[in-house]
Amino acid sequence: MSQNKVKHPNNTITCDACSGVWPDPENQIVELTQTKVYLHDDQYFAGWTVLVLKHHATELFQLAEPDRNQLMQEVSTVAAALTEVFSAVKMNYALLGNLLPHIHWHLIPRMANDPAPRDPPFNIAHAPIHLIPSKKTERLTIIRTAIQKI
Amino acid sequence: MSQNKVKHPNNTITCDACSGVWPDPENQIVELTQTKVYLHDDQYFAGWTVLVLKHHATELFQLAEPDRNQLMQEVSTVAAALTEVFSAVKMNYALLGNLLPHIHWHLIPRMANDPAPRDPPFNIAHAPIHLIPSKKTERLTIIRTAIQKI
Repeated sequence: MSQNKVKHPNNTITCDACSGVWPDPENQIVELTQTKVYLHDDQYFAGWTVLVLKHHATELFQLAEPDRNQLMQEVSTVAAALTEVFSAVKMNYALLGNLLPHIHWHLIPRMANDPAPRDPPFNIAHAPIHLIPSKKTERLTIIRTAIQKI
Repeated sequence: MSQNKVKHPNNTITCDACSGVWPDPENQIVELTQTKVYLHDDQYFAGWTVLVLKHHATELFQLAEPDRNQLMQEVSTVAAALTEVFSAVKMNYALLGNLLPHIHWHLIPRMANDPAPRDPPFNIAHAPIHLIPSKKTERLTIIRTAIQKI
């Protein structure tokens, strides 16, 4: 992740999500009410997707209840779409923020042929898989279509 | 985690959470509307807490919207309490289910003196820290009080 480049709206911290430095706009799948949804750069877990909150906050309990409910509706919808597209046997949901505190949800489909099906996804050493542009476009389109159908 | 001992209500799968085999009832902090809240057996991350859904479901998108909203309200409340009690600089929220699919949220406070502050909590090799009974009782009480105040 690159260094932060701009001031956060409250002028006290910088944030790569607020500045648009991360995620790569080319990876955007769809824009929803509370979040923008991106394909993760590393597709070792096929379908690994990130939902980035459109305003700056770092903890669930900082959100107004209607906003949090809408956020979790979007997380659920994208999880359902990914489960369908990738025939996931389990979805992994994680809101960590140890590198970038701005709220972003990782959704990681775990498949029947998973290399380490009982392990947390972050424990599995692997070389990142970066899709070639045509494959990435294809994956973005498939996920976008599935989200829009729900 | 021990082997499952009882049938899940739909009689097709077994579930250690439904049977009460896990978590240890002695670790219960509080019972809320949608979840029971337990101190995790491993307190390497002080305050590591688990919220277990009181009925069997494995994915967020299987829940009725009011139930999901209430679940996330409880996750948020417990996260706020843990942040206060442990002066966490970041809360980590994870719903994985790779070992036990029954919905259970891990809430892991990350502190200023964290041994690996930028890493996911599941990546950090460590010997588990099991509290002696008096320390466990003290921690359960402190967290319970903080939850009840919110």
